[in-house]
Amino acid sequence: MRVNPNFAKFKEDYVYVSVKEKLTQYMQTHPPQAEILDLSIGDVSFPLNQGVIEAIHLAADQQGKMDTFHGYSPKKGHPFLVRAILENDYQAKGIPVNENEIFISDGAKSDVAHIQDLFAEDITIAVVDPFYPVYIDSNVMASRAGEYDEKTHRWSRLVYLEANEDNAFVPNLPQQAVDVIYLNYPNNPTGKALTQSELQAFVDYANQHQALIIYDAAYEAFIQSAEIPRSIYTCQGARNCAIEIKSFSKSAGFTGLRLGYMIIPEDLVYEGQSLNEMWARREATKFNGASFIIQKAGQAVYQPRVKAEIKANIQHYLANACRVKESLIEAGFVVYGGENAPYLWVKSIHEQSSWAFFEELLNKYQVVSTPGSAYGTNGENFVRLSMFAADGIIDKLIKRLKEL
Amino acid sequence: MRVNPNFAKFKEDYVYVSVKEKLTQYMQTHPPQAEILDLSIGDVSFPLNQGVIEAIHLAADQQGKMDTFHGYSPKKGHPFLVRAILENDYQAKGIPVNENEIFISDGAKSDVAHIQDLFAEDITIAVVDPFYPVYIDSNVMASRAGEYDEKTHRWSRLVYLEANEDNAFVPNLPQQAVDVIYLNYPNNPTGKALTQSELQAFVDYANQHQALIIYDAAYEAFIQSAEIPRSIYTCQGARNCAIEIKSFSKSAGFTGLRLGYMIIPEDLVYEGQSLNEMWARREATKFNGASFIIQKAGQAVYQPRVKAEIKANIQHYLANACRVKESLIEAGFVVYGGENAPYLWVKSIHEQSSWAFFEELLNKYQVVSTPGSAYGTNGENFVRLSMFAADGIIDKLIKRLKEL
Repeated sequence: MRVNPNFAKFKEDYVYVSVKEKLTQYMQTHPPQAEILDLSIGDVSFPLNQGVIEAIHLAADQQGKMDTFHGYSPKKGHPFLVRAILENDYQAKGIPVNENEIFISDGAKSDVAHIQDLFAEDITIAVVDPFYPVYIDSNVMASRAGEYDEKTHRWSRLVYLEANEDNAFVPNLPQQAVDVIYLNYPNNPTGKALTQSELQAFVDYANQHQALIIYDAAYEAFIQSAEIPRSIYTCQGARNCAIEIKSFSKSAGFTGLRLGYMIIPEDLVYEGQSLNEMWARREATKFNGASFIIQKAGQAVYQPRVKAEIKANIQHYLANACRVKESLIEAGFVVYGGENAPYLWVKSIHEQSSWAFFEELLNKYQVVSTPGSAYGTNGENFVRLSMFAADGIIDKLIKRLKEL
Repeated sequence: MRVNPNFAKFKEDYVYVSVKEKLTQYMQTHPPQAEILDLSIGDVSFPLNQGVIEAIHLAADQQGKMDTFHGYSPKKGHPFLVRAILENDYQAKGIPVNENEIFISDGAKSDVAHIQDLFAEDITIAVVDPFYPVYIDSNVMASRAGEYDEKTHRWSRLVYLEANEDNAFVPNLPQQAVDVIYLNYPNNPTGKALTQSELQAFVDYANQHQALIIYDAAYEAFIQSAEIPRSIYTCQGARNCAIEIKSFSKSAGFTGLRLGYMIIPEDLVYEGQSLNEMWARREATKFNGASFIIQKAGQAVYQPRVKAEIKANIQHYLANACRVKESLIEAGFVVYGGENAPYLWVKSIHEQSSWAFFEELLNKYQVVSTPGSAYGTNGENFVRLSMFAADGIIDKLIKRLKEL
């Protein structure tokens, strides 16, 4: 028996594991001066909305009676949820998506990581740096990334699209031929959102070069500005070059429930094969659907009362982001994001490494951040702060920023 | 953009889709003579137990309050469920498994399909014929099966271990070098269960040849006979060569809830790499855990009252299997299985193809079966009947078998 040789190429553990280890080390060597404020993991803090909880209760009761019991779910998801998504997230906004193009999943991470099952092994992948690590790691495991260069901190076969202060975090188009481009807007970790015309440039590029865009829109619910598109299919020609991935995690607080969906337009045909049909085959082989009860919870998210509550939660997170951003700026930091996304992208004052900056923030404010280098070389000098933290934590951080 | 070329190698849709299409065709061309009795898909019919439903209600209420809300689950599963599994399924039976070796998942199908992420691309895979199609299809997608031969109905790079009437469905050991062996006992579709000594022979073979066994024990709860092992780790040396996969679907009726687990012993080290650590990395990259609420439901399965109810459900399914088996035998069929598994493996009287036999049963009894050829060449002349069907369906089938 021989193992997949690609796993040995990983130099570091998944970033959140490293942060946790670093924190544990710190706690062991430093007597606690004050409460540790964790703003590292992008996990929500508001509880589920009552309408969602009621839906779970009802669905559980259905599962307890012979005549309303549901076993395996339909392969692409229960029609009640598929139609709610179609009507609310697409048709109501005039965005062209068909019912057959929606696939319900157990969350955006699974979709983001598994979509590469459909790619040939030797295609060229482009990622924006900074990136959500799953785009790269899932392709490393599938032999698509090449070798890791310890000096440049980059993989030999990947194409990196730079997004940094120089271009205001709007990545440049690829300068060489690529087959797949992962885009994530509103962006984790920078908080940047692309405007309609900025996104259209990528769609035009993809159509001109027969490339495929994997558009991770997990943070769509945070969009506030009218000029930021809520779906890639608002761009002309996107149905011919883009897959869109969405999540209930960051909008409705489903991080612990697990629910997401992916749009694969029927127009996406490469080498005579429909990606929609390939994915249907992939899911029929490797997945047995999201939990019925959680799909019912997802349907409840579209009730008007729940929609309003979720919108209020998001406004609350963004208001916290605004308050923290102001305090950070007052304390002398350069800060990006937080306007159409729940993340602040904070620059080190001393141009130090992101791990050194992480440690400085931990030492001075007892705040846990995520070091920017976890997201790529453009993350050096930066840390990410998650604004999903509870109010108590946000308030304490602001207090310490003002006093220290 | 070029696609994974392996998807084009599939000659047929996933079997249950084909059965559904066949049935739709039949319904369109044949006026209904009597109610169609569906015994094809292995989906449970009993509703969830009340103890499980109460646990879901409690967990949902927890998710609705700020101080008891749970976001992302721990990477390997919530400790309350991991410990319940460890204590009930292993420690109470004296079976050697450690807490760190248990990985909670959204069901056995995901685990069975994804475990091959850990294998090198050019290893040799052995499957028992008849097989659960996911073992093969997941490896086809990963370039590990070679080419499909339309004449033999077999893949060029797979090794098939024959299980048929000649060897009483106990497969022969591999006659050539193989790296991984998929075993599924109690077996889907034949209903066969291996005895302790029969399974020990495979464990001994694997240890002698440095092979890995993927032991799919999704139907363990149906074991009635004391000589049938309830875990592969009851075999000497199995911790050095076997991964075990279990499911809550067929025991507690969780087909719609989605919950399972996998045991990866820390002793499994190949080429200096721990499979347990590799899987932890795989899951951290591609999965975000089973739903918290469903993990709470899984914990409730181990309450003494729920355990007793589940046992009674299984006895009920097996009693139905016994009744149907007797009626089929009286009607002249040769029938296997149904004693330690919820499936009957029924032989055609006329030595016809399994699809012809499928059509005969549909025409004569209006019963939907699964044609044996879906599970491999040893399935020709056979169909599988699922005994998970509701009592009303079972009763009608027995009546028709007696009368027609």
